[in-house]
Amino acid sequence: METYEVKPEFYNYMFSPNLEPAVKVNPGDKVVLYTDDAFESRITSESQSPKSATKNAKFLNPQSGPVYINGAEPGDTLVVNFESIEFTRDWAVSCIMEYFGGLQSTGTTKTLQKPLEERVYIWKTHDGGKTFTSDRIGVTVPARPFCGTCATAPDTEAIQALTPGPFGGNMDVPDVCPGHKILLPVHNPGALFYIGDCHAGQGQGELCGVALEITAKVTVSFDIIKGRALNWPRIESEDKIMSVGSAKPMEDAARIAYADLIQWMADDYGFDALDAYELLSQIGGLYVGNMVDTTYSLVASIEKKYLKRT
Amino acid sequence: METYEVKPEFYNYMFSPNLEPAVKVNPGDKVVLYTDDAFESRITSESQSPKSATKNAKFLNPQSGPVYINGAEPGDTLVVNFESIEFTRDWAVSCIMEYFGGLQSTGTTKTLQKPLEERVYIWKTHDGGKTFTSDRIGVTVPARPFCGTCATAPDTEAIQALTPGPFGGNMDVPDVCPGHKILLPVHNPGALFYIGDCHAGQGQGELCGVALEITAKVTVSFDIIKGRALNWPRIESEDKIMSVGSAKPMEDAARIAYADLIQWMADDYGFDALDAYELLSQIGGLYVGNMVDTTYSLVASIEKKYLKRT
Amino acid sequence: METYEVKPEFYNYMFSPNLEPAVKVNPGDKVVLYTDDAFESRITSESQSPKSATKNAKFLNPQSGPVYINGAEPGDTLVVNFESIEFTRDWAVSCIMEYFGGLQSTGTTKTLQKPLEERVYIWKTHDGGKTFTSDRIGVTVPARPFCGTCATAPDTEAIQALTPGPFGGNMDVPDVCPGHKILLPVHNPGALFYIGDCHAGQGQGELCGVALEITAKVTVSFDIIKGRALNWPRIESEDKIMSVGSAKPMEDAARIAYADLIQWMADDYGFDALDAYELLSQIGGLYVGNMVDTTYSLVASIEKKYLKRT
Amino acid sequence: METYEVKPEFYNYMFSPNLEPAVKVNPGDKVVLYTDDAFESRITSESQSPKSATKNAKFLNPQSGPVYINGAEPGDTLVVNFESIEFTRDWAVSCIMEYFGGLQSTGTTKTLQKPLEERVYIWKTHDGGKTFTSDRIGVTVPARPFCGTCATAPDTEAIQALTPGPFGGNMDVPDVCPGHKILLPVHNPGALFYIGDCHAGQGQGELCGVALEITAKVTVSFDIIKGRALNWPRIESEDKIMSVGSAKPMEDAARIAYADLIQWMADDYGFDALDAYELLSQIGGLYVGNMVDTTYSLVASIEKKYLKRT
Repeated sequence: METYEVKPEFYNYMFSPNLEPAVKVNPGDKVVLYTDDAFESRITSESQSPKSATKNAKFLNPQSGPVYINGAEPGDTLVVNFESIEFTRDWAVSCIMEYFGGLQSTGTTKTLQKPLEERVYIWKTHDGGKTFTSDRIGVTVPARPFCGTCATAPDTEAIQALTPGPFGGNMDVPDVCPGHKILLPVHNPGALFYIGDCHAGQGQGELCGVALEITAKVTVSFDIIKGRALNWPRIESEDKIMSVGSAKPMEDAARIAYADLIQWMADDYGFDALDAYELLSQIGGLYVGNMVDTTYSLVASIEKKYLKRT
Repeated sequence: METYEVKPEFYNYMFSPNLEPAVKVNPGDKVVLYTDDAFESRITSESQSPKSATKNAKFLNPQSGPVYINGAEPGDTLVVNFESIEFTRDWAVSCIMEYFGGLQSTGTTKTLQKPLEERVYIWKTHDGGKTFTSDRIGVTVPARPFCGTCATAPDTEAIQALTPGPFGGNMDVPDVCPGHKILLPVHNPGALFYIGDCHAGQGQGELCGVALEITAKVTVSFDIIKGRALNWPRIESEDKIMSVGSAKPMEDAARIAYADLIQWMADDYGFDALDAYELLSQIGGLYVGNMVDTTYSLVASIEKKYLKRT
Repeated sequence: METYEVKPEFYNYMFSPNLEPAVKVNPGDKVVLYTDDAFESRITSESQSPKSATKNAKFLNPQSGPVYINGAEPGDTLVVNFESIEFTRDWAVSCIMEYFGGLQSTGTTKTLQKPLEERVYIWKTHDGGKTFTSDRIGVTVPARPFCGTCATAPDTEAIQALTPGPFGGNMDVPDVCPGHKILLPVHNPGALFYIGDCHAGQGQGELCGVALEITAKVTVSFDIIKGRALNWPRIESEDKIMSVGSAKPMEDAARIAYADLIQWMADDYGFDALDAYELLSQIGGLYVGNMVDTTYSLVASIEKKYLKRT
Repeated sequence: METYEVKPEFYNYMFSPNLEPAVKVNPGDKVVLYTDDAFESRITSESQSPKSATKNAKFLNPQSGPVYINGAEPGDTLVVNFESIEFTRDWAVSCIMEYFGGLQSTGTTKTLQKPLEERVYIWKTHDGGKTFTSDRIGVTVPARPFCGTCATAPDTEAIQALTPGPFGGNMDVPDVCPGHKILLPVHNPGALFYIGDCHAGQGQGELCGVALEITAKVTVSFDIIKGRALNWPRIESEDKIMSVGSAKPMEDAARIAYADLIQWMADDYGFDALDAYELLSQIGGLYVGNMVDTTYSLVASIEKKYLKRT
């Protein structure tokens, strides 16, 4: 088992099968990736205008990687063991941007109205990253670190890093966090794993579109499940299995997530599909990860204790 | 303080301003309402066909009430103190129906495909209502009782009881449960409160469209907030405030719920609206109550501890 | 054959089974109904604020009727022969209202943005109703009169007049016009027919939410198709058959409309359902009636000449 | 002025900035492109199963091009003068596929139901391409040829050819036809123009997901509008201007299309934006191009005669 450190000199803005691997590793190796924040650290003060600060950025949401995992081949499943996140600065940034976010018209849900006023929020930690405080609001929230993006390269397509999809991507789902396993489909030799967009914390829905964006050092390792093809990302924690659907309208994301979870229960736990459907109706979980990205991401879950039948 | 018992001889199938009150009570009085299950107890065995069993039912989802609360007037808020639910039988019923549910085409999300096969699930309790077991699936789940419907009469309209809306209604939101306060807008003298559709438990989304349907004895009492008009239902627990939005597509339900919560934080907790928007982006909760009814119901929430600013 | 004139002293704001008939007629009788505009003629000048002008209106969209058609019974189809519209004034009014319309956030598609600026447009006719001119814009458009609303009373429910649905209602579909037959389901004895919301013209989608609103004298007569139950409104012109679906999201309205048209082609023209599906894929029409009401209305159509198979 | 002929030896399945130009041309040159059908001519008989016939196809919807137009640079608009379509065979093919189409659940609008039965329809022309006849249905429809796809390469992303978007793509909009000008944004040097998916005809909505698919010889020429950046595709005919929006849910496609048309009316015809909004409310057109692709495409339009103000 080796440990590799990836400290990018430049970042990628696409989930692409065509980018040069930053590192090649074996299953079981530890990989430490440094990640920049979604604004490439361009916004550092509450007096800035997000629009001005990012006007020279052709794309946002820089990604670290890709990591080439030896032995991964199309049709396999990549298991990402998410080991840890360490923040590499003592503040996070969020902001209200023009024509972006869950309670604002956008380029897609288009209106003729003026945008909301821009506003930057700097959230500082005074306890080494356990909590973050906005002096502007006068509130302190606990850190609950996770990565907004986590992807394998799509099949042939090159998709910009603001997009969630079957390959993972910008799901903004808080369960993509240390201690959990993230399962992603492999479409290319080496899987080509991307990660970025670390959040010190985020509410369900990521309402204004911007979480507690922070730079970080992320540690992961990988396993490969040979010959097992996935349709959508899955997450496994100690006590739950979860499927992530990303689509618009939001009900389609819900349908995808629950249908994939039923498939999982059928394939791996021996449930009849309709029985799984019934059981999830009574005990399933369904929360909104993001309601702001190019598609919305919802997470359907069931506790493992209900997967054992008598 | 009086205690009134409402044991309906017949049920209502509309949230209507025109129905005769079952009882008139004062704020603070206890009201015990017996509720039938959503199928009017027509489905009692796993060998039944839900379609056949309900073919003579012009409407489903019988409602108890309305309760006339003395002193409630249009423009007030009705506070429902939800005290308890006692099951009045030792089994709950769920089923897969034709052209209904989250993973089936419906009369609205219409396709040309054949429906799913019908299937009834009887869930029995062997411990006085603490858990429910499906022998068919071989799984036991804990009871988490709540009422699927809870409403005040709409303004002039008479709406069938399968519908959620600004007046509450068939929200299928598990937080409409004992120990919580449900806040509803008052549009008619006496408010005209309806309740029904008791669930022994339900997963988030109510995936197949049918929860653990059960008959029950529901105890509530009421308060009135004079001169306070609500746009959408709100829920308060010991540690959270919650707003419920019901709409299609699902993202509109999310928008309504979070926007109403921001309004609540601004009105009662002194937040600037954009600061509330930012705070909810970092610490808000957003889950799906139902993804199966005539509109979808989502619940946005924030813990009360984050409402105190320094 | 008689001719009846209905000149309302007051209007209704609900599609309700409980309102007293304005007149009882036989199939074949002519009924002349006077209709007020959607604002009850409260907005008459470009210097008015729609919000101020309507602030005392509890409801908008006044309806004339209901007309009781002798012999119509639940399970029948009401055929409305739409004979003529005569305008009863020489101007129409449209306006941009706050938080309403297709390119503005609303109470449902909720944002935190400020509303659009209010603006009233008076469109005058100088040629007896053939064309209408907005001096403010400097444009003249041809009159294409139709009724925005046209309904039978729903089954038990009382629905406010701004709502489209299976019963017809506020569809805002330009094909509800003189020369066409409108087919509506009958849910109550006498059918209880409502009409109103006359438009001197309207674009597809009714983009800002307000068409060329005008007062009018509408002439209709009725036929009854006994024992034929409809699920959704249908329209027949000399050369087309059309089905109207009303739902959100908009794709559900499209699904409903096309699925109902396939049913019609199967029932009345002998098509195999999948063949009808295929044929509509190649030659069907699908336009947006309204994208602004409580649900959206889409019209699917096929020309009659393609209904004859060799 | 030159004439170039592009007879592909292989086709592309991506709208990509990275593919080698098939030909480099100057504005004004004629380009004749041969296009294969969406199934790569794999389905030729009504006895085939579309699933079996396409199971070795990694992607569908082959594209001809890209054409590099000398002088086109990022920030310009490419004007495609669509000159003609000549069919290169005497039959078109359509089919009902599993889990695809407007009245079937899909991988996104997911249900647990079985798919529709597969069915192939061969439509033959007996008059040199003026009409097409399905013997299976017994109906003849007129040819109305257009190209389902027409795109410039996106900015950095490589998007599979089944997708519509701001770059054009798989819009399936019948107004992308001979005699019309198609305006597309330029994101890469040379624009990199793709075309394919010729349809002998298609209904609005492309209901079952498959039009009258046919091989063809397409003739176009190009102009460049320097320094004019577009957000969404536009179409100009002799008497109309049209904007195409592609999004989900369908109402977002409608919003995009009408908002872009307002922008066009403001920029090129001197309209105040709210006046344009009002005028489109009275005289705009809005039809559904496709209700089956990865996003839905709607076309908003206004006749040019209403663009001249007095």
